[in-house]
Amino acid sequence: MIETPSLVDQYCHGVLRTELGLGTFEAQLARTEGPPAPGTTLFDTQTGFAVRRWCPPLLGLEPHCPPARYLARRRELGVLEAGRRLLRGSGITTYLVDTGLPGDLTGTTEMASTGDAEAREIVRLELLAEQVADTSGTVESFLANLAESVHVAAANAVAFTSVAGLRHGLALAPEPPGPGEVRGAAGRWLADRRVGGELTDPVLLRHLLWIAVASGLPLQLHAGLGEPGTRIDRTDPVLLTDFVRATAGLGTDLILLHGYPYHRHAAHLAGVFPHVYADSGAALVRTGARAATILAEILELAPFGKILFSSGAHALPELHVVGARLFRESLAQVLGGWVAEDAWSPADAQRVAGLISAENAKRVYGLE
Amino acid sequence: MIETPSLVDQYCHGVLRTELGLGTFEAQLARTEGPPAPGTTLFDTQTGFAVRRWCPPLLGLEPHCPPARYLARRRELGVLEAGRRLLRGSGITTYLVDTGLPGDLTGTTEMASTGDAEAREIVRLELLAEQVADTSGTVESFLANLAESVHVAAANAVAFTSVAGLRHGLALAPEPPGPGEVRGAAGRWLADRRVGGELTDPVLLRHLLWIAVASGLPLQLHAGLGEPGTRIDRTDPVLLTDFVRATAGLGTDLILLHGYPYHRHAAHLAGVFPHVYADSGAALVRTGARAATILAEILELAPFGKILFSSGAHALPELHVVGARLFRESLAQVLGGWVAEDAWSPADAQRVAGLISAENAKRVYGLE
Amino acid sequence: MIETPSLVDQYCHGVLRTELGLGTFEAQLARTEGPPAPGTTLFDTQTGFAVRRWCPPLLGLEPHCPPARYLARRRELGVLEAGRRLLRGSGITTYLVDTGLPGDLTGTTEMASTGDAEAREIVRLELLAEQVADTSGTVESFLANLAESVHVAAANAVAFTSVAGLRHGLALAPEPPGPGEVRGAAGRWLADRRVGGELTDPVLLRHLLWIAVASGLPLQLHAGLGEPGTRIDRTDPVLLTDFVRATAGLGTDLILLHGYPYHRHAAHLAGVFPHVYADSGAALVRTGARAATILAEILELAPFGKILFSSGAHALPELHVVGARLFRESLAQVLGGWVAEDAWSPADAQRVAGLISAENAKRVYGLE
Repeated sequence: MIETPSLVDQYCHGVLRTELGLGTFEAQLARTEGPPAPGTTLFDTQTGFAVRRWCPPLLGLEPHCPPARYLARRRELGVLEAGRRLLRGSGITTYLVDTGLPGDLTGTTEMASTGDAEAREIVRLELLAEQVADTSGTVESFLANLAESVHVAAANAVAFTSVAGLRHGLALAPEPPGPGEVRGAAGRWLADRRVGGELTDPVLLRHLLWIAVASGLPLQLHAGLGEPGTRIDRTDPVLLTDFVRATAGLGTDLILLHGYPYHRHAAHLAGVFPHVYADSGAALVRTGARAATILAEILELAPFGKILFSSGAHALPELHVVGARLFRESLAQVLGGWVAEDAWSPADAQRVAGLISAENAKRVYGLE
Repeated sequence: MIETPSLVDQYCHGVLRTELGLGTFEAQLARTEGPPAPGTTLFDTQTGFAVRRWCPPLLGLEPHCPPARYLARRRELGVLEAGRRLLRGSGITTYLVDTGLPGDLTGTTEMASTGDAEAREIVRLELLAEQVADTSGTVESFLANLAESVHVAAANAVAFTSVAGLRHGLALAPEPPGPGEVRGAAGRWLADRRVGGELTDPVLLRHLLWIAVASGLPLQLHAGLGEPGTRIDRTDPVLLTDFVRATAGLGTDLILLHGYPYHRHAAHLAGVFPHVYADSGAALVRTGARAATILAEILELAPFGKILFSSGAHALPELHVVGARLFRESLAQVLGGWVAEDAWSPADAQRVAGLISAENAKRVYGLE
Repeated sequence: MIETPSLVDQYCHGVLRTELGLGTFEAQLARTEGPPAPGTTLFDTQTGFAVRRWCPPLLGLEPHCPPARYLARRRELGVLEAGRRLLRGSGITTYLVDTGLPGDLTGTTEMASTGDAEAREIVRLELLAEQVADTSGTVESFLANLAESVHVAAANAVAFTSVAGLRHGLALAPEPPGPGEVRGAAGRWLADRRVGGELTDPVLLRHLLWIAVASGLPLQLHAGLGEPGTRIDRTDPVLLTDFVRATAGLGTDLILLHGYPYHRHAAHLAGVFPHVYADSGAALVRTGARAATILAEILELAPFGKILFSSGAHALPELHVVGARLFRESLAQVLGGWVAEDAWSPADAQRVAGLISAENAKRVYGLE
């Protein structure tokens, strides 16, 4: 059988520190615009079913047990102990943590200690810019502080991540904006902005992307499935083609996160461009029993040295578990199936499993 | 095994009352622009093969028998008796019938009696508007009669359906058009129009959608595969995102019909928006031996309480049979497979089968 | 089991006449913009693995042997003998060869003798126009010579092929450009052009398509996956819908090459329009162990009389082998699976296999 002893989760978030009831837990199972429809529940989704399959045994319950029973047991153990059992049961050995989402979430260090694993930080560019804007008085100081902040972050973080695709869409002009254009956009944004105001201006989003590219740190770009409030065709990774071409040869790697339902497009870009990588991440958590097919679709065009695992998990340690288990099961099923029909040799399959599970991430992010 | 004792076909049409020869039967197997290419036949399609698999036994013949033999037997029985045997053999217990297509087709009552089933009517908005236009002398009377007709229809019908996507494309401005805009568009349309002329004006199509939304009755929107004369990317359901967002919270459910090849996009919208539902319909009839995969793709993102069965069948009772049989077989294969690999529990699988087969439709359309 | 004794490769290129090292061989395994990323190799792709599965046994080695060992054996045999063994081991009985790519490639006659098969020529329209431009002094002579060249080519070739989609995108105006428009575009192009300069002007690309359509010879259109330098959504075959509609009924068949990842769209067009055909070609070579799924996706909407096999192979005879073997294995797996579950009869499956493998191509291209 295919083994994956080491598992680098190249993109996830921390977990909530607060106790959760049935409703607050359910709300984390999907990203919706509004509450579940009358007569329906978000537990009746692939993610909900996957949580009920994989997590109860880690808390001493039978698989597929009812949500209420699971939540009762979770509260009985307490959020800390439940989180420890879940993260340690996930099989993830390194977490790369995007710390740029709000909420009472564990940070990088706490993810490492709770999960008994390594953890490194990913810096979210838009939040960084918003934080700099909160404390900068003028356009000139904002731009200087922003450049400095990216520089400092690059020294400590393992990657940058950008949600420009979710904020504006990925159809951004591919070239860096000129200095005057940036100053003008910054001036307008700062003038209109209250503390905490979101960055959505396309010129500033592009400016951020380009100063991140200049840092040399790997840059993760959200594509495909994303947050409420977006329109999914605006995050088709194919829209990034010209930006990808413009950044070729600069020495900075681009990682296309999520991708689904355009994951074949992300895999295509990873196949064409040396500096582009494809994620096999959140898509698996969202599609549950279908995860093996999604992974196989990514494996069509993406070279095997260009695919990275992630859970994309946020808030619930259950999602880290589900991401890791679905990935491992899917990888074993897909690659094992190809070995069984003699399309791949067993040695190749094991080697590719190691690449996607951990080795590619170690190389791209310079881990160890 | 997964059982589906009750089956609500949430979208279909009546069947032809006239006897059919080989050529007229074949012409109903696909929606084409032109006759089959020389040397080819529409029986050599997934739909044709599925008809030959499922229907001959209901008329006392062996599965997969040649088309000519099947048609001879069909004529021997007569169109009424053949229709009765087929519809009653489909397993469908309730038909929701879009009566808005031309041709000598059975209506709602006749579908119920022929099929020994319940039947309810779906009103096609564009036809309603065209009928009102045929009998209204002025713009003011047209608009008043239209509002009244929608109101009356809403009292009797179980849903509205719109082919705005096939007439104009789904990239319609999301907000309701203003009264002046509507009057202007109605005036231009009525002035140019002959009796029976089709409604294609985007302002009037939007006006229709919004008065339907105001009625509170579920609104079915055609997306993906459609009629000859369209361009398929103009019916990608993702184009509806802004309209969907604009209608959120108003209390009217939207059902995205067909969807294929963009069914993953339809499933995504059903996952994000409480009032959106995804169809697992005509796509199965069109893809035959591949139906289980299409159904599984819909089951990736769509919550299990948000998926509805339909046959999408038109003119041939064979298509109602094929829609129902492919759906049941696919559901049993997909959910049964997940149970076999322990991804789902048997009880969950059976419960979800009941939801998709009938319970979701009963809830959404207020049946019984 | 499903048998495919005869195999018409409806689109491929010749093979290189020069000896290849590990690096020059690897470079032919994918179409990339730049060399493999550090730490990766193009052998770690579906195409690379498929070559290692199918080709070593034809040269007397074990399947899955390491690339270096395979290349050593290939050089030991010499490029001519290796090519002979590979092509003759592919099972292809007729090659239709696009001779319009540069490089030291075997031509049509040499493909026939090396492969012990039939071979016929496909003429690439854009190259033809460039060659005419190289030798025409004026706009008038260019246009007259072009018409004459297409006429002459049509008498000898079996099809035309166009890469207008890769040069400009498939969103071309559907109608033929007017004579004045063509003269103006030709004048500008010839004035700016050096010998060998590429044709990318959309007016001239459309002019070429229409004079090809007028010839009555089947016209192959590249869609989906293509060359470096393109953006994949610009080659979605759905963009051809209006051109397809404009050419309906003129008696010229259109064949949509490649298609992936938009192969379901290509299959849709083949289903709607009598004169449109779908390719099950390069997609299989690129997706390797996933080929059966891609083929099955094409078989959803495309009528079985409208699907054609190709390898899309270029430069390496290994790619002809892989294309043919993956196709045969996939066809047997997909159709055999449907027979096993009684969705199709064995006789129908065997008949459809014969259509897709060879009979459809013989009919469309008038072979024998």
